[in-house]
Amino acid sequence: MNSKRVAAMKAAMKKHHATSLVLSDPSSIFYLTGHWFSPGERFLALLIPLNKEPLLFLNELFPCPKSPGVTVKSFPDTVNGVALLAEEIDGPCIAVDKEWPAKFLLDLMDRKKEAQFILATPIADAVRRIKDAKEQDQMRVASHLNDQAMCALWGHIDGTQSEEEVTSFLHQTYKKLGTEGPSFTAIVAYGANGSDPHHETDESHVTSGDSIILDIGCKKDSYCSDMTRTVFYREVSPEARKVYEIVQEANRQGILAARVGNRFSDVDRAAREVIERAGYGPYFTHRTGHGIGIDVHEPGDVSQVNDQIIEEGMIFSVEPGIYLPGKFGVRIEDLVLITKDGNEVLNQVPKELTILCADPDPKEEGHS
Amino acid sequence: MNSKRVAAMKAAMKKHHATSLVLSDPSSIFYLTGHWFSPGERFLALLIPLNKEPLLFLNELFPCPKSPGVTVKSFPDTVNGVALLAEEIDGPCIAVDKEWPAKFLLDLMDRKKEAQFILATPIADAVRRIKDAKEQDQMRVASHLNDQAMCALWGHIDGTQSEEEVTSFLHQTYKKLGTEGPSFTAIVAYGANGSDPHHETDESHVTSGDSIILDIGCKKDSYCSDMTRTVFYREVSPEARKVYEIVQEANRQGILAARVGNRFSDVDRAAREVIERAGYGPYFTHRTGHGIGIDVHEPGDVSQVNDQIIEEGMIFSVEPGIYLPGKFGVRIEDLVLITKDGNEVLNQVPKELTILCADPDPKEEGHS
Repeated sequence: MNSKRVAAMKAAMKKHHATSLVLSDPSSIFYLTGHWFSPGERFLALLIPLNKEPLLFLNELFPCPKSPGVTVKSFPDTVNGVALLAEEIDGPCIAVDKEWPAKFLLDLMDRKKEAQFILATPIADAVRRIKDAKEQDQMRVASHLNDQAMCALWGHIDGTQSEEEVTSFLHQTYKKLGTEGPSFTAIVAYGANGSDPHHETDESHVTSGDSIILDIGCKKDSYCSDMTRTVFYREVSPEARKVYEIVQEANRQGILAARVGNRFSDVDRAAREVIERAGYGPYFTHRTGHGIGIDVHEPGDVSQVNDQIIEEGMIFSVEPGIYLPGKFGVRIEDLVLITKDGNEVLNQVPKELTILCADPDPKEEGHS
Repeated sequence: MNSKRVAAMKAAMKKHHATSLVLSDPSSIFYLTGHWFSPGERFLALLIPLNKEPLLFLNELFPCPKSPGVTVKSFPDTVNGVALLAEEIDGPCIAVDKEWPAKFLLDLMDRKKEAQFILATPIADAVRRIKDAKEQDQMRVASHLNDQAMCALWGHIDGTQSEEEVTSFLHQTYKKLGTEGPSFTAIVAYGANGSDPHHETDESHVTSGDSIILDIGCKKDSYCSDMTRTVFYREVSPEARKVYEIVQEANRQGILAARVGNRFSDVDRAAREVIERAGYGPYFTHRTGHGIGIDVHEPGDVSQVNDQIIEEGMIFSVEPGIYLPGKFGVRIEDLVLITKDGNEVLNQVPKELTILCADPDPKEEGHS
C-alpha cells in the first residue's frame, strides 16, 4: 500500500464525514496497492475504514500477489463478497466508488439499512486528480512515447493505407516503443469521416485535400497519454486552412487559461470563444477536455458546467475541434500538467499546419 | 423497438411489481431497439414505464439513428441526464440495470426519495436469458464461425509461433470470416501457462509435450461465441492424457445434465463429480459455465450455488477444467442451447485427444 495516498484518502474521508470508503475500480485499487486485478463481472473491493487498516476482498479465482501490501480477505467463487464486506463495515457513512454496479450497491444497502451512502468521487477521485511527483513523471513518459508514435504515423502515411491499416501500424509502433498498447481505441479519420468526433476507424482511403484526424494514446507503466493532431493529405483547401487556424488558436487560448485558480469552465470558455467568434460555435459539439491519469478519462471535465477550481498537479486535455458535417473535421489536443505558475504541455508534436505527401516542388503554371 | 421483447419485459415488471424499468446496459438497449450506443462514462438510459411507451435518453454527442424506433429525449453534454430521467419516472418501484454505476443510481435515489429501488436482473436479464428463434440462429452462426476459426488455428500452429502470434493469426482469421472480431480476449496458453485459468497470452513458445489451451470466441451480428479446446504439441505424457480424459468426461456429463427441469447446480455437480472422483477436485477451481448471448458473460452461472431451474431457450457454456500448478492445464468448453427434450451443442470441433505436429510415422525402438 502507498501509505501517503491512503492517508490522503482518509483525510478526504474526514472532510466528507465518511466512515468507510469502498473502492471497486481496479484503477483506484492499483493507485493504492500497486497491483492490478481484473474481476470482470465478479466482486472486488478495497475497504478503507477511517480508523482501521485497509482490507482487500479478492475472489480466489484471481491470483493474489505474493506481497499484496494489504490484508487480503479471499473468498471462493461460491461466496457472496458483498456479505463479507458488510460484516467488516461499521460506522454510519459509507462512500462508494462512482462506477460501483447497482448489483453490489443495492445488495450492500439492503444489508446496511441504517447507513448513509454517498458517492466517493469527492474523496477517491479528488485525491487521484492531484498527481504526485512520481505520477507526473509517468505521465511525461507516456506522452513522450505518444509523441514518438505520432511522428512515426506522419512518416508512415503515404496515401495507400486505409484508416484501419494506419491503426495497425500504430499498434505495432506502440509495441516497439515498449508501451502496454493503446490507452483507448484510436481514431484515424479521413476527410468527411472526421466530421463525426467519435468516428469508428474503417477501411476508408484518403483523397487529396482530406484532413486526417489522428487521436491516439498509449499506456506506459499504467499511465495514459492522449493527443490529437489533424494533418492534411497532399493539399489543403482555403476553408480547411481557415478552420485549422481557428482550432489552433482555440487550443492555444485554452492552454493559456489552464492555470491555478481559474475554473475548468474558464478553460472551456477561452477555447470556445475563439471558435464562436469565428462563427463556428455550433460545430464545436463537445466539451473542451477531460482529466487523465491511470484512466484515459478521469473526472475533471473541462466543460461549461464544471466550475471546480484548477489546482497544481492536475492533468487534463485541451482539445477543441470544429466538425463540418459531410465535409471534414479538425481537432487539436494536448495534455497539460498544472504547475505552480502556469502549466507544462506534455506533448511536443508541432501544431503548425502540416501537409503530408505534399508535392515538394510544385510546378507553377506559366513557368517552364 | 422489438415489441415482443418489450412486452416480455413489461410482463416481468408486473410479476416483480416494478412500475419503471431503467436500462443502461448498451447490450440490453440493443436487445430492445436494435441499435448500439457507446456512451463511455456518459449517461445513457432506456426508460420503460409499465403503462407508457419507452423513452431513450441520449446525449447529443452520440449519433442518433434516423429511425430509432423509440421516442428519443436528447440532451446536450452540459445537462444532467439523471435529472431528465427523474422527471419522466413515476410510480413507486424502480428497477435498475445490474451494472448501473453508483454515480447515476445515488443521484436518482436522491431525486426519488420515496421510491423503492430494486435490481432489474429478474426482469431484464431473465427475459434476455431465454433466446428467441432469431437469437438461437444468430448464436448458431457465431459458434459455427468460431468452429472454423478453431480448425484454422489447429492447421496454423506449427511450433514456431508464440502465444501472441497465434492470437494475431486468430484475429486475422476472425476478420476473414466476416465476424466483428473477438468476443473476449482470447486465451492461448502453452504448457505451464495453462495452469492459470486466466493466463494472459504472452511471448512464450511451445515445447514438445505441452498442452495448448485455446479459449476463443467471436462476435457475429452482435452475438457471441465462446469455446475452448485443449490440444497437445507433438506428444502427450501419460499424466496429461489421463487428465485430458477426465476433463473430456466431465464436459460430457455436464452437457448430459443440461436439460429442462434440472438446476444449473446440477450441471456443475455432474461435471465436478467426475473430476472429484478422479481425485482432481481441488484443481477444478472455477464454476462450470456461464450464460452467453449478446454479452459473452451473461447471468446464469453454472455453479454450485445457482439453484435456478434450466429452461428451454437458454444458452450457456459447459467448461470444466483441471489446472496443475506449474505443470499444465486442460479445459474443454462448449456452448449448449437448451431444447425441449435435451440440448443442442453449438460447437462441432472434435473433442477426441488431438496432438498437433505429431510425428506421422514414429520409428519404434528395436525396429530398423
